[in-house]
Amino acid sequence: MPCYTTGEPIYALATPFSPSAIAVIRASGDNVLSMIAPYFTGKIASYPSSHAIHGFIHDGNGRNIDEVMLIKYEKGHGYTSEEAFEIMSHGSLPVIRAIENLLESIGIRRAERGEFTYRAFMHGRMDLTEAEAVEEIVRSKSERAGSEALSRLTGSIKREADDIKDRILNILASLEVQLDYGEDEIPEDWEFPYDEVDSIISRLEAIISTYSASRLYSEGAKVVIAGRTNAGKSSLYNALLKENRAIVSSEEGTTRDYIEADASILGIPVRLFDTAGLRETDGLIEKEGIRRTEELIKDADLVVYVIDPSSDDVPPADESILTVYSKRDIKLKDGSTSFSSMTGEGLDEVINKMAERLMEGRVVSSSVPSIDSERQRDNLSAVLSALRDAEASASSGYDIIALYLQSALESLGELTGMVTGEDVLERLFSSFCLGK
Amino acid sequence: MPCYTTGEPIYALATPFSPSAIAVIRASGDNVLSMIAPYFTGKIASYPSSHAIHGFIHDGNGRNIDEVMLIKYEKGHGYTSEEAFEIMSHGSLPVIRAIENLLESIGIRRAERGEFTYRAFMHGRMDLTEAEAVEEIVRSKSERAGSEALSRLTGSIKREADDIKDRILNILASLEVQLDYGEDEIPEDWEFPYDEVDSIISRLEAIISTYSASRLYSEGAKVVIAGRTNAGKSSLYNALLKENRAIVSSEEGTTRDYIEADASILGIPVRLFDTAGLRETDGLIEKEGIRRTEELIKDADLVVYVIDPSSDDVPPADESILTVYSKRDIKLKDGSTSFSSMTGEGLDEVINKMAERLMEGRVVSSSVPSIDSERQRDNLSAVLSALRDAEASASSGYDIIALYLQSALESLGELTGMVTGEDVLERLFSSFCLGK
Repeated sequence: MPCYTTGEPIYALATPFSPSAIAVIRASGDNVLSMIAPYFTGKIASYPSSHAIHGFIHDGNGRNIDEVMLIKYEKGHGYTSEEAFEIMSHGSLPVIRAIENLLESIGIRRAERGEFTYRAFMHGRMDLTEAEAVEEIVRSKSERAGSEALSRLTGSIKREADDIKDRILNILASLEVQLDYGEDEIPEDWEFPYDEVDSIISRLEAIISTYSASRLYSEGAKVVIAGRTNAGKSSLYNALLKENRAIVSSEEGTTRDYIEADASILGIPVRLFDTAGLRETDGLIEKEGIRRTEELIKDADLVVYVIDPSSDDVPPADESILTVYSKRDIKLKDGSTSFSSMTGEGLDEVINKMAERLMEGRVVSSSVPSIDSERQRDNLSAVLSALRDAEASASSGYDIIALYLQSALESLGELTGMVTGEDVLERLFSSFCLGK
Repeated sequence: MPCYTTGEPIYALATPFSPSAIAVIRASGDNVLSMIAPYFTGKIASYPSSHAIHGFIHDGNGRNIDEVMLIKYEKGHGYTSEEAFEIMSHGSLPVIRAIENLLESIGIRRAERGEFTYRAFMHGRMDLTEAEAVEEIVRSKSERAGSEALSRLTGSIKREADDIKDRILNILASLEVQLDYGEDEIPEDWEFPYDEVDSIISRLEAIISTYSASRLYSEGAKVVIAGRTNAGKSSLYNALLKENRAIVSSEEGTTRDYIEADASILGIPVRLFDTAGLRETDGLIEKEGIRRTEELIKDADLVVYVIDPSSDDVPPADESILTVYSKRDIKLKDGSTSFSSMTGEGLDEVINKMAERLMEGRVVSSSVPSIDSERQRDNLSAVLSALRDAEASASSGYDIIALYLQSALESLGELTGMVTGEDVLERLFSSFCLGK
């Protein structure tokens, strides 16, 4: 577990370590601007905060490392709210290494994962749900997931939590008045505010119910295309990829007994597996291939089973498997989902069915902010169950009700990071990517 | 072949398309700032050039795409000298795609490779050798190559070319005076300036001779470790990698009959191949493996043959192969290069020998700028041969000498891009990486 600090000078490469036009190396901490100044030809002190200053980074011994732009951030202005800078250098591996070595040699240490965002949180620039949204944006696999995370980054969950907090505080306030009457005596004029608590509860339920769909949009699903040899698996695979060519990943495939690629099924990011090329034989290698396919299927979120309508093959007994018929142009299977990779007919229907199966049991709502974090779901569930407990104790006495309401407030505080322990913070931020 | 333009609004992702903390998308061209302004919440017009402006990029219909920093460059201030901006967004694939889609929708087209640098060249911000250096920095595989490219980026070749041009112009000027005398008459008081021309020629030769070593430092070398099973190949491989762990590439290995990784041999970047695991057998798969190893060896810049000193193996007849003995701690082979992977003894010597072999016949000079471009080498060679021709024609008449000197000047002009045709430029810039 990394040990996070604030103030101590840190740096990180914020772009991938791979040759490209530009690389960005960021640094944050007390006095980082005066630390880098002797190794940069631009006059940092002469420019205002947020200015991109042109110059050469050098090693202090007359050897230039690169021609760069350095963006200066005075305390209170940058991502972390600390004094900071960002170097935009050429995206050259030796240049990146040389700049990193320079920064370490002048006492700026490599940052831990998430340490920049940790500092932004500690300096009050964002609450915990906003901090989590930073990482969710970076990791998001679909435009929808990115868009939802951005809404959280701009405080949609925080505002929701603040609102619920106010409503619970109001109930508590009305209760306090009653508490003055005496310990066990419930005056006639106070009634448990069932409507208000029910309203908060259903709001919480709505937010929590977005979790499953959010995860699908951010993490994506595994979809395996199975079926007999020559059933039309690869045609379907290619058709699904072709529809979405723009977002096929550039990851290189390695030699396996199946091929895989990233695609999008109506906005849902999927990893698509084609088990093409497998035949049932006695050959040892092919048996191993079949074993791997079975493992794939066991692990899949959806299996699409392709049948050639002119064959004697029948749909699998397992109803969770989506059966589709190929070669619709040659033989149309009535009442079934079918497609033709030749004419393209029926492909939209196959895609719709796939999306339908993947979304089964998942709720999408536009009236509440969505969540994509297990931690947030657990905290909101704790608030929810404390409110239910309060309701169930409506006739048990004010102090019991107040206790449950206080417990709900505490869980809300954990959600936004107001009352979160250092260990929880470190575990949370250490799952971030480097440079954030 | 792409068709390069200037002024037309273009954009490019300048960082790798891979999830990371930050992505940079740059745009350049007439009015790009007023084109993006309606889709950015920051007040671009209120800030000076080179200012990093905080705000949200949105799609114009109320949907935010990302929270970003936008660096504004007024005409004459940025990389291309055109009006330009750079967006630093979250390094999220859906965010990058959404920003790219937005830019295309408002009439900013995707840039061709090298188009930004082409514009910097066309607007006189850099000469052709400096433009080439940009790409050489990005592609460089060693600190030395990056450092040499940076020196070219700051005009080391350009200054050299200007100096040589001045010296040739001086000779031509003195010749012009003589030309006034008459066509075939050589006055007694003018002599061919052998010393000056020889001095230029040897300077040119020195620069050209750096090409081979520069290529080695920028492109790297293929080194294959061969030898019998259990000779100690893998120990050597691992020891060489361990010495240089910091710069082992993160590329994932794919299933092959040999393993490979990036290492550095005294600053020379090498791709190291270990042919471990091969045995001479009748098995079809292993025969195929041996065939591939033979191909590897044919293609290698250096083969290191490892021999177990207690075996009956002998050094290969081919003298270009470097033979080294392993297991020095068990049995020391006198008078030979040997190492022990157990004690580490002799490893430095092996590394020195490897570097020596790789540098054989290559010249490193610190008194002249080095070149790393075939085009530059060819142009400098053309200057060189024109000067030699001039020398050889010393007694053939002024006009012939003048013609050769003029031809030398023309090649110098091509070197710096003063007189280079559009087709040459497009071929050259289209080999650049995207975003440069």
